Amino acid sequence: MEDRFEVSILLDFYGTLLTDKQIDIMNMYFNEDLSLGEIAEINETSRQAIHDSIKRCYKQLKNHEDKLKLKEKYLNKKTEKENLMKELSKVESIDNDLLEYIDKKLELIINI
Amino acid sequence: MEDRFEVSILLDFYGTLLTDKQIDIMNMYFNEDLSLGEIAEINETSRQAIHDSIKRCYKQLKNHEDKLKLKEKYLNKKTEKENLMKELSKVESIDNDLLEYIDKKLELIINI
Repeated sequence: MEDRFEVSILLDFYGTLLTDKQIDIMNMYFNEDLSLGEIAEINETSRQAIHDSIKRCYKQLKNHEDKLKLKEKYLNKKTEKENLMKELSKVESIDNDLLEYIDKKLELIINI
Repeated sequence: MEDRFEVSILLDFYGTLLTDKQIDIMNMYFNEDLSLGEIAEINETSRQAIHDSIKRCYKQLKNHEDKLKLKEKYLNKKTEKENLMKELSKVESIDNDLLEYIDKKLELIINI
């Protein structure tokens, strides 16, 4: 079905816009790797109902991304951060410890 | 009514979740400083209808912020960036030009 990595990122960004039940099902399927059958059993419903629910949630997540583009912006931030680190690594007056320190701080900033 | 600066930031983050008409009204009121009466005239409706629409939009924006916290996260990014710049300004091997360069790049990154 959908790409696991992509869904995982979308859940990070937009999970709070889903219901608790929806988040549970999406996490079971995409992060905990349970099968549709197993999730259906846990939720006392049919495999088809879980399948539909996942499809619906995924569409919702994609819809949010189309409008807010948080995933796209995050990936752009990551690229810009890498470009900056590459530039800074060429500056002689900045030693490795300092580079590492800046890198850690930048990582923290883009992940807030 | 609501704080102009706060609404302006919320519109930047969540404007795409409103309808075009809603965005127009919010921009006229909060960014272009038009009165309720003026906006009502432009939209051929009553002052009260515009007032209610603004209240509703504001509630929607606040609701999105409660769930996604993009404004809060942005302000935290800004604080972390300032902390990092303060730390870097104490490092002797980093001259002012380089500091300025890093500052610009960080500003760009947190505003993506």
